[in-house]
Order: sequence, then structure tokens, then C-alpha cells
Amino acid sequence: MSQSPVPSALTQFLTATAGRNMTKAAYLAVAIGVATMVMLTVNPAYEAAHWAGAVLWACLAFFAFEWVVRIRGSFRSGRPYLMTGRGLLDTAGVIAVPIALAAGAEPRTAWLLAVLWFVKVIPGIPGLRQLRRVLVLESGPLLSVLVLFLMVLFLGSVAEYFLERDAQPQTFANVPAALWWAVVTLTTTGYGDVVPITPLGRLVAAIVMISGLGVFGLWTGILATGFASETRRDNFLRTWESVSKVPFFANLGPSAIADVTHMLRTIDLPPRVTIIRKGQQGDCMYFIATGGVEVDLPGKKVQLGEGAFFGEMALLGNTLRGANVTTTRLSKLLVLDLVDFRLLMARHPDLAETIDAEAKRRALENE
Amino acid sequence: MSQSPVPSALTQFLTATAGRNMTKAAYLAVAIGVATMVMLTVNPAYEAAHWAGAVLWACLAFFAFEWVVRIRGSFRSGRPYLMTGRGLLDTAGVIAVPIALAAGAEPRTAWLLAVLWFVKVIPGIPGLRQLRRVLVLESGPLLSVLVLFLMVLFLGSVAEYFLERDAQPQTFANVPAALWWAVVTLTTTGYGDVVPITPLGRLVAAIVMISGLGVFGLWTGILATGFASETRRDNFLRTWESVSKVPFFANLGPSAIADVTHMLRTIDLPPRVTIIRKGQQGDCMYFIATGGVEVDLPGKKVQLGEGAFFGEMALLGNTLRGANVTTTRLSKLLVLDLVDFRLLMARHPDLAETIDAEAKRRALENE
Amino acid sequence: MSQSPVPSALTQFLTATAGRNMTKAAYLAVAIGVATMVMLTVNPAYEAAHWAGAVLWACLAFFAFEWVVRIRGSFRSGRPYLMTGRGLLDTAGVIAVPIALAAGAEPRTAWLLAVLWFVKVIPGIPGLRQLRRVLVLESGPLLSVLVLFLMVLFLGSVAEYFLERDAQPQTFANVPAALWWAVVTLTTTGYGDVVPITPLGRLVAAIVMISGLGVFGLWTGILATGFASETRRDNFLRTWESVSKVPFFANLGPSAIADVTHMLRTIDLPPRVTIIRKGQQGDCMYFIATGGVEVDLPGKKVQLGEGAFFGEMALLGNTLRGANVTTTRLSKLLVLDLVDFRLLMARHPDLAETIDAEAKRRALENE
Amino acid sequence: MSQSPVPSALTQFLTATAGRNMTKAAYLAVAIGVATMVMLTVNPAYEAAHWAGAVLWACLAFFAFEWVVRIRGSFRSGRPYLMTGRGLLDTAGVIAVPIALAAGAEPRTAWLLAVLWFVKVIPGIPGLRQLRRVLVLESGPLLSVLVLFLMVLFLGSVAEYFLERDAQPQTFANVPAALWWAVVTLTTTGYGDVVPITPLGRLVAAIVMISGLGVFGLWTGILATGFASETRRDNFLRTWESVSKVPFFANLGPSAIADVTHMLRTIDLPPRVTIIRKGQQGDCMYFIATGGVEVDLPGKKVQLGEGAFFGEMALLGNTLRGANVTTTRLSKLLVLDLVDFRLLMARHPDLAETIDAEAKRRALENE
Repeated sequence: MSQSPVPSALTQFLTATAGRNMTKAAYLAVAIGVATMVMLTVNPAYEAAHWAGAVLWACLAFFAFEWVVRIRGSFRSGRPYLMTGRGLLDTAGVIAVPIALAAGAEPRTAWLLAVLWFVKVIPGIPGLRQLRRVLVLESGPLLSVLVLFLMVLFLGSVAEYFLERDAQPQTFANVPAALWWAVVTLTTTGYGDVVPITPLGRLVAAIVMISGLGVFGLWTGILATGFASETRRDNFLRTWESVSKVPFFANLGPSAIADVTHMLRTIDLPPRVTIIRKGQQGDCMYFIATGGVEVDLPGKKVQLGEGAFFGEMALLGNTLRGANVTTTRLSKLLVLDLVDFRLLMARHPDLAETIDAEAKRRALENE
Repeated sequence: MSQSPVPSALTQFLTATAGRNMTKAAYLAVAIGVATMVMLTVNPAYEAAHWAGAVLWACLAFFAFEWVVRIRGSFRSGRPYLMTGRGLLDTAGVIAVPIALAAGAEPRTAWLLAVLWFVKVIPGIPGLRQLRRVLVLESGPLLSVLVLFLMVLFLGSVAEYFLERDAQPQTFANVPAALWWAVVTLTTTGYGDVVPITPLGRLVAAIVMISGLGVFGLWTGILATGFASETRRDNFLRTWESVSKVPFFANLGPSAIADVTHMLRTIDLPPRVTIIRKGQQGDCMYFIATGGVEVDLPGKKVQLGEGAFFGEMALLGNTLRGANVTTTRLSKLLVLDLVDFRLLMARHPDLAETIDAEAKRRALENE
Repeated sequence: MSQSPVPSALTQFLTATAGRNMTKAAYLAVAIGVATMVMLTVNPAYEAAHWAGAVLWACLAFFAFEWVVRIRGSFRSGRPYLMTGRGLLDTAGVIAVPIALAAGAEPRTAWLLAVLWFVKVIPGIPGLRQLRRVLVLESGPLLSVLVLFLMVLFLGSVAEYFLERDAQPQTFANVPAALWWAVVTLTTTGYGDVVPITPLGRLVAAIVMISGLGVFGLWTGILATGFASETRRDNFLRTWESVSKVPFFANLGPSAIADVTHMLRTIDLPPRVTIIRKGQQGDCMYFIATGGVEVDLPGKKVQLGEGAFFGEMALLGNTLRGANVTTTRLSKLLVLDLVDFRLLMARHPDLAETIDAEAKRRALENE
Repeated sequence: MSQSPVPSALTQFLTATAGRNMTKAAYLAVAIGVATMVMLTVNPAYEAAHWAGAVLWACLAFFAFEWVVRIRGSFRSGRPYLMTGRGLLDTAGVIAVPIALAAGAEPRTAWLLAVLWFVKVIPGIPGLRQLRRVLVLESGPLLSVLVLFLMVLFLGSVAEYFLERDAQPQTFANVPAALWWAVVTLTTTGYGDVVPITPLGRLVAAIVMISGLGVFGLWTGILATGFASETRRDNFLRTWESVSKVPFFANLGPSAIADVTHMLRTIDLPPRVTIIRKGQQGDCMYFIATGGVEVDLPGKKVQLGEGAFFGEMALLGNTLRGANVTTTRLSKLLVLDLVDFRLLMARHPDLAETIDAEAKRRALENE
């Protein structure tokens, strides 16, 4: 690779600025590409937009370029990008349209495959890992519900076919047609293109509909249950790391730290975000895990760094927020709600004293 | 403003009686205004109702007046009303119709904008803050589900367009039409105006429908989870204040107060509401946080003030309520359910003794 | 009343056997009456069934008789039956049809009011109190969701009316018609009789549909949250009474009793129900709160009365059930699940010893 | 039976290899049979597929054979197979089609009954016992919701019949037709074949639709609540057995074991499954309840047997997984999540020391 230093340097630069910026550009390209593809299928737009092909080719070129960069990066780091799910999806997005064109498909049809670019967004979805864990952990009950669903589907559609085929030989011509009716009914979609008309057929349909509600309810119940426990677990994991770094909590025993961790919520904030606005009603206090904030007191600005806390005044005296607080850099804060603040103070009186002393010291300083 | 004392006095009076009364009047005006606007769009009603225009103008005048009063109030208090969300909505409600009329729109069309008055109701919705907090805290997972929803939407509609465009060139003319089908299907609405008819198209549709159920279930699961924790938190916050004011709980330690707070529910009652009816089955007792009640004993009426409790007899002896109890003024009561009453008595035997002693004293007094 | 001893005696007898039997008869009469009424509206059935009128009159007579009996009972007991919700519903059921007939309505139309008899079933629904409490306690958030629902309804329908009235002057003729569309869409019913066809109209419709999902999810989340706490509370209340009557738990402190109560479930069983079947896998044990059971041991039958327990063998040794156990009279049993059995044994070792000793004694006896 | 040794030996062999293999074959036969039956109802396929009848008869023969084997097995074991629910379903599946053919039904119609084979899948559904327990335990509230559903159904359909019969004498011809409308509407299916058109009829329909949402929400709330408690219970039961067998937990007191059991999850794995992949982020550790695993360390393979644990390194140091771990035989593992690992270490410091010591020993060994 040493014979072509210019592209190599370019690639290096791109690899360096990759990650966040490249991802953002990719999202933009996905949005533009898919929108253009959708537009192309509308006849009047197709005839007017001669530039559309160029846009699509540009998006494809960008994805191809990103793909090459990632492959090179994977060679360097030794992690096989092409073997990961993401690599496969990216590869499909890059080669699908050219293959379709090469296979002789009409351009407009071939570009329909640009919808595959949409899956590039998946790895960027925030709570996806959480959702996947719920689906994996609850896969047993969810599968059971699916089998029940299929059973009602088959029993219902055969019954309906038997009852309706004489009255409506066209719409209930065979069991696959009845299965279509059953899916549309069980999911409570109800297009109305296939509807039973005999009294017995309607009775069976009513039972299928009510079963649909039941299946739905079970489905939701399972997901709600899984989600509740997953949310608690996820928050604990994200918070635990940070808690042990805050000196304030350092002299707590491990059991108390676990206790505290359950009470805190982690939030990540970019620089120059106003966390607290003067005059607002306060119902939580903040600990700085990483980063820093600026407190905008009358006449002076106080900097607080890692391990410091703020916002405790409003909780102690139930008054309004006394000053604006803004992040100065990318910060990870731990939020302690009023509810948990009080529980914590009740269980760990020494923490209460520390906060109280600090609050008094600050109040004195500001007089 | 001193040169026109009369309108100023009027304004002052209105500002003073504002808040509750003005809000009620505004709700009434919203209801009348929107109803009149809806009616105006019905042709026969339009021709008959010559008074409708006058009603709408009156509502608009009222809102304009309320708007001016609020702006003046905000000048006096120094809080910038026009910059708040509420101020912007109010402004839009006041100026939208006149602007539309000035821009040359037909009166009936311009008055359609009166529907914007509806948003004036938003700040008065009781549990709205709670709902918003759930949506904010769970925005991560909710967004993930939305992205999944969009992904199924796009993949499904492109697939369906590809499979159905030859069979139904009219209804599946382009991808936007297929997207319309996909939205109608994924939300399980199912109008039936666009329905796949090819076997493969129906298979894809079935998958889209079942995905719709899954998305729905995740959505509900997330909201249910968020709501459960928010409800607990909200109740704690509202109750904490009041608990510490009740002398009965004053000698508990902070940990026990947190414990008790989790057990109590706060209710706010206007004057002259009967809380307990003689002869009913009782399953809770009440502590008076603020306000007062009157116990209607045979032959005499006993007044109870802040810090007192009542309704404990039914819980101690599992008998029926012995007397009517009615609020005498605006009161905040703390409700202790039978379940929690027993748990509390078990954990804090001294409280049990206090209640027992008081109950005996009252029983003696009434003999 | 002394001058007519026969009807008085009849009434007394009926009052005595009232309650359970009369309620059952009333349910039967409701079922027969409503079914007959429904059938009467079908033309061929109407012409064939001359006996239908007689059946309906008989049902009405029964309800009128029941009504009179209840009024007499209420005079005797001093509780004003006619003023209660149930009394009003019963009165409406009795007088609605005669009034309609007297007012000159066609008999078939008048008998439609027989559907009011259905509400007589309400007080007999088992979990209704529980459902009502959930609705009352969660009325705040539910109302908020309803207001949000109405807001989306009005904003969506005015927007849709504005966008579609030119394209479909018939279906979107006025805002009430658009409101009909919005209700059908927001509830995801989707009849398909009113469907937007313009691109912008469809975009608004898509937003309305997705909002419909959100409203739905909030609704369900609120109800699920409310139901969870209500179920726990309800079970505690029903179980508490019984627990304190079982001598086995009597020497526990109040805190431990509250603990135990949370673990137990109450079930009410009629006589001659087989609770345990020999050879089944056992995962719970039973305490007899009231009533009695018969254990069908080889060669002899052992009677167990109030306060006794059984089914503990399967839990202690993880073996199969060793004998059939059948109720001998109406019994209230407390069920302790294997999970909670182990937790209980871990927390209260003395209980474990008692059960162990009893189990050994029984095993010896049966050898 | 001794006079025919060959079939008896065959039967014995089949009985021995029954269970898992026979069940798998039966699932395959169900899938093939039902698919063939569905295909037969499609006219072109019916004429082309002369082999279809043979396939169906083969499936039926297999089920008949399985049925006979099971009956013989039940004679030997003394457990009455034919009296169990499963036996009855199997019997129905075997005799339904022959009876229909014998009764003179057309073959294609008779084979429709092959859909009954589908119910053979029921006993194999994993989480079914759990689902059934939820439905049984929550049957009270679910029944209440069903009664409310029926009430809204009847009141709504009679009202709609009364309001719409003059405007649409065809579609709202009688109350059964209106009931059909009400079911389709309350379940939010909304076919659109029967739709109210009068203003009052639409108002009633709107109320019915919104009630449908409410019923749905209650239904889901009940199921979600029931599912949450059932999941916790089920996990506890499955895990308890295994925990007490792991020597690591053996010296904990019973209360601590109950505590630990609540934290662990049981998973069953077939042989040669890779549990941990080198380089992955680890967030749980594993205890081997039964079976064994192989740790693929650089240069050597370490076998771990029952009672051993692995995966603790990643949790202690928050680093990546250091080696592949694969099951060597059918294994039951207990999974301890990072969250619970920390809670456990906090509450039981002696466990923490044991794990720490073992981890250090292993690290030394591998140097």
C-alpha cells in the first residue's frame, strides 16, 4: 500500500474522523437515498427528476467508500468486519443494486433495493441492545404465544372455509384464502376484503377476534414484564461504574453502594447544556461522574469538576433553583431524585451531614 | 396607566379573580367556540345560524382579553409570559383567525383555526406532568421502537410495491402508495382501501401485521414500565410534605417517615364533601394534613383540625363506619389503607398504641 | 299484612331462599329474556315464535316479583333499596317495557328495552369492585389520556377536513364527518368508509394512527400499573382475616403475620371438590381457614378441620402427592406456594420445625 | 403377547426411542399433513397432486401407530393415557378423518379434519404451563372484563339496531346483525361491512370503540400483572433445585439460598454449544448445576464439571472474556448477572472471597 501515499493518507484521515461524523454522514445518505428511491417510483416525479439517478449513484458510492474504509480498518485491527452482522448488511447494501442492474433488471426496479440501506441505521438505535435482550430472555413465552396464535389461525381458517365456501365460493375459495382472512382478523386489522356472512361463520369469526385480543394481551404482558426487569438491570449496570468514582460515595460499604446505585440515574450531556435554570422548581440533585459544570452565581462563576455535586439546595429547603448550571464539557451526571434523596438521607445519616455541611459552606461563601 | 383608573381597576379586579374562575370561563369559551366552529361546517346549520359568527367573535374577544390581562400580569411579576409555551399557544389562538381573515381566507375556512383554542386546555390536564416525565424518561426505548416501526414500514412497503404493482397497477402505483398501505396495516387500522391480492404479497402483509402486534406490545410494555415507577415517585413527592406536618408521625425517625410516606395517599377535597358515610364498610383511615372535618355523632358534632385522624374505629374492629364525616373547608387528607395500616401497626407498635388509646378515649366520650 | 297470611308466608319463604338461589334464577331469566328479545328481531323467527311474547312477559313478571320482594325486604331492614344504584337499575328494568308499550311503541320495539335486564348481572361480577377501584384511583392519568385523545381527535379531524374536502366533498362534507373518521382511525378500528386520498391527508392520517397507538399504550400502561397494586392489596385483605384464625400462625408476631399474609392466597371451594389428586406433582401446601377436608389414605379416611394443614409432604420431599384430598363442606383454604414455602421456612425456622414434626408424626401413623 | 415376538420387539424398541425422537417425527408429520391438507383445497393443486392423498394417509398411519404405541405403554405403566386430555386429542386426530369418510363426506372435506392434528403440538409448547397458570389465577378479573365486554356488546348493538334500522334496513336488519357489528367494532377489527351512518348511530359507535380500547387495556393490564408474578415464581422453582446442588452455595443458610435463588437464572444447553466467546464483553458468570464444560485456554483445554463456576474474571476486572467455553454434554447452568453478582458480593462477603481466591489461583495456573 506504500506506493500510493495520497489515497492512503486520505483513508487514514477518514478513518480518524470516522465514527461519529462518518456515521452522521451515513444516516444523511440513507435518508437522501431512500427518499430519492421512493420518489423515483412516482411516475410524474420520475420523468421530471433527471438528477435522481446521480443522487442514488452518489449515495451508493459513499456507502461503497465507507465499506472499503471499514474493511481496511478491520484488516489493521484484526477484527473481521465482513463476518459481523453489520458487515454483512453493509455488503448487501453495497452490492445488491449493482448485481440487480447486472442481472438485467430495469433501473427503477433495481434501485428499489436501496431500501436495504435502511438497515444501516440499526446499530445506531439507542435502546436496541435492551430490546434484544428482552426478546431473547422472554423468547420462551413469546414463542408459546406465537404457537397459540398459529393454532387459532389454522383452526379458525379451516372452520371458516368449511362454513363459508358455499355462501362465498369466490372469497373463501380455499384454505389459503381463509388463512388470509384469519391473519387479517386475528391481528384486528380487518381490511374487510374477506368477511364471513353466514351466521355460524360470523360466530366463529367473533371467537377468533376475541382470541386475537387475548393473544395481544398476553404478548403485551410478556413484553411489559420483560421490559420492567431489563430497564432496572440496564440502569444499574450503567450507573455502577460511575458511582464508585464519586468520592462522596467512596466511604460507603459495598452493600450501601449497591443500594445507592439502584437510586441513581445516569445521563450523558454534551457541552454548553443548561442543566438547571434559575427560578425553576427543583426535584433532583446531581453528582458529576465525569466532565464539569459551571455554576452562574451572582457576580462570579464557580467551576465544579468530577466528584462534585450540585442542586442539593433546592432539595434541602424545598425552594426554587438559585442559579443556572451549565456543562462546560461532555459530562456524565448521576441524578438523584427527591424521593430517593430522602430515602438515602434516612438510611445513611452521615451522607446527609456531608451534604448539609457542604450546603452551609456554599451558602456562607455566597453571602 | 394612571390616566385611566377605571379599566385599570377592572383589570386589577380581573387579575385578582383570575386563576380558577378565569380558567373555568376559558374552558367554557373553548367548548362553546369549538362546538360552534364544528357546527358552522355543516351546511344546513351554517345557513340557519346567523348568530354563530357573533359567538365565535365573542370567544375570540374573551381570549384576546385574557391574553392582554396575562401580558400585563407578566410585566408586573417580571416573568415573561409570552416566551413560555403557554404564552405562545395563547398568542397563536388569538391571532390565527384574524390573520387568516386578513389574508383573504373565506370566513368559514378561517374559523377552522379556532380548533387551536383547544390547546389552551393542556396546562389544566391533571396528570400531564406525570405523562410527560414518562415520555421523557422512556424516550430512548420509545425512539428505538419508532425506528423499528419505520424500518418495517419501509421494508414492507417496498416489498409489497414490488410484489403487487403488476397485479394492481392502480392501488400500488408507487412506493408512497405502498407506504400508505403499510402505515394502515402496521397500526392494525386496516381501512381496506389498499389490500394485497397476490399470494406472496399477502404473506408479506401477514408478516407486517404480526410485526405490528410486536411493535404495539413493546410500546405498551415500555409505557407500562415507565408509568409504574412514575406513579410511585409522584405519590411519594406529594405525600412527603404533608406527612412531616402531622404530629402523629412527628416522633418517627426519618427512615420510618420514608416508610410511612410510601404507604399513604394524598387526596385534596373541597369543603362540604362527605368522606365517610355511616353504615359503609370501612377499609382505610384518614389523617388531616390541612383543613378540617366535622364528625356527625349522635347528638353532637365534633370538629377535627389539622393533625387529627379519624376512621380508625372501622379498621381496629372491622366493623361498619359509625358516623358521617364531612369536610368543613378545603382539606388535604392522607389516606392509610387497611393493608398498610396493618403493616404499619406491625412495624411501629408505638403508633398502634397511640391510635388504640385515642380510639378508646373517643369511645368513652361518646358513651 | 296479617290479613293475608298466604302471600305473606310465600314472601317470607322467598325472602329466606333468596340470595343465592334467587340470583341464579334471575341470571337464567336474564339470559332467556335477552335471547328471546334478540331472536324476536329476526323476521322469520318473529313470525314463527308465537310463544316468544309469553316468555318475555314471564321474565318481566319474575323481575317485577323479585323487585317487590326486595322492596318489602328493604322496608323491613330499613335500608333504602330503591335509592341504591342496584334498586334504580332493577326499577328501570321492570318499568321500561310497560312504559314504552303504554306510550304506544310497537311491541317489538318496546321489548328492545329488555336489554336493560342485562345490567342486573353487574353486581354479581366477581372482580368488579377491584376493577372499579383501579378506575377510580387511576382516574387522574386516565382522564389526561382521554383529553389527549380528544385533542388529537379534534386537531386531526379539522386538518383532515381542510385537506380532503375538495377531493372528497361527499365523505368529508363537514367537521362532524371528519370527527367520525378520526374516531374510527384513532381507535385503530378503520372501517374504510371514510378514507383520506390526498397525499397530505394521508400524512396527517398516518400521524393520527401512530398517535392512536401511543394513546392506547398509555391507557394500557396506566391500567396495568393500577391493576398490579390493586391485586396485591386485594389478596392481602382477603387473606389477613383467615391467617390470624389459623393456630399454626397464631404465635407469630404481627410483623411476621403481615409477612405471611403477603405469601398466601385464599381460595373458596364448595363441598366435594378434590383439591389434591394422588400421583400429581405438588407445588403448594394448604391451610384450612374454615371448613374441612377428607384425606383418602390407604385403608382409612382422615378428617381435617379448621386450622389443620395438608399437602406439606410433597413440598418437604419433592415427591408426588400421596393421597386424594377432598373438601367435605364449603371451605376457605390458604394456599402456600413452593416458592413462598421455602422463603417462609428460611425466615421462620420454628414454623419449619412444627411442619416437620407434624409430617413425621403423620408418616409414622400411616406405617 | 408372547406369541408374536417380532412386533413386540419392534414396539419395545419404538417405546424406548420414543419421547424426544417420536415427538420430533410427530411434529414433522403434523407440519407435512396440515400443509398437504391446505394445499389440497386449492383447485389447480388438487388436480395436479395425485400423491397428496398418499401423504395424508401416511401421516394418519403414523399418528395411528403412535397412538397404539402410547396405549400399550399406558397399559404397562398403569397410567390411563386415553383418559388424559392428550389422549383424547390424539384419539380425535386418529379417528376423525376415517369417521368422516365412513359417514360419506367427500374426501377433500373429510381431510379438512386433519387440522385437528395441530393440537398435538400443544403439550410441547415450552411456556404453556406458565401461560395456563396466569389464565387460571387471573380468571376472576378476566371473567369480569369479559362480562363487561358482553354488556357493552349487547347494550351497544341494541342501541345501534334501534338507531340504524330505518336508515339501513339491509345491514342492520335485526339484533344479531347489530351484534356482529358490535363484535367487529369492540375488538377494533372494523371490517367496514356494517357501518353506522346516522349521526346518533355514529355517536354510539364512537362510545363503543372507546370502550373497546378500555376493555383491551384492562385485559392487557391483568395479563401483564399476572405474568410478572408468574415469571418470578417459575424461575425460582426451576432454580432452587439446582442451587442447593452447587457446593459453592452449600454453606449458605436457607435464607441466603432463597436470596441467591431469586438472583439466578437457569438455562439448559445441549452439548457443543459455545457459551462464552473470547473477546466478547462479559456481563454474567456461570455455575454448572449438571453437565460439564471445556475452557479453551491457550495451549491446553480445561474440563470443568458439576459445581464449578466460570466467567467470573470478566466480572471481577470488567475486562473482555479471555477464552472460549463450550459445553461437553447436556448441561444445566445457573447464570448470575453482573447486577446480581455485585449485590451478592455485597451481601455475602465470604462468597466474594471464595470467588476471588479461585480466580487468583486460576490466573496463577495460566501464567
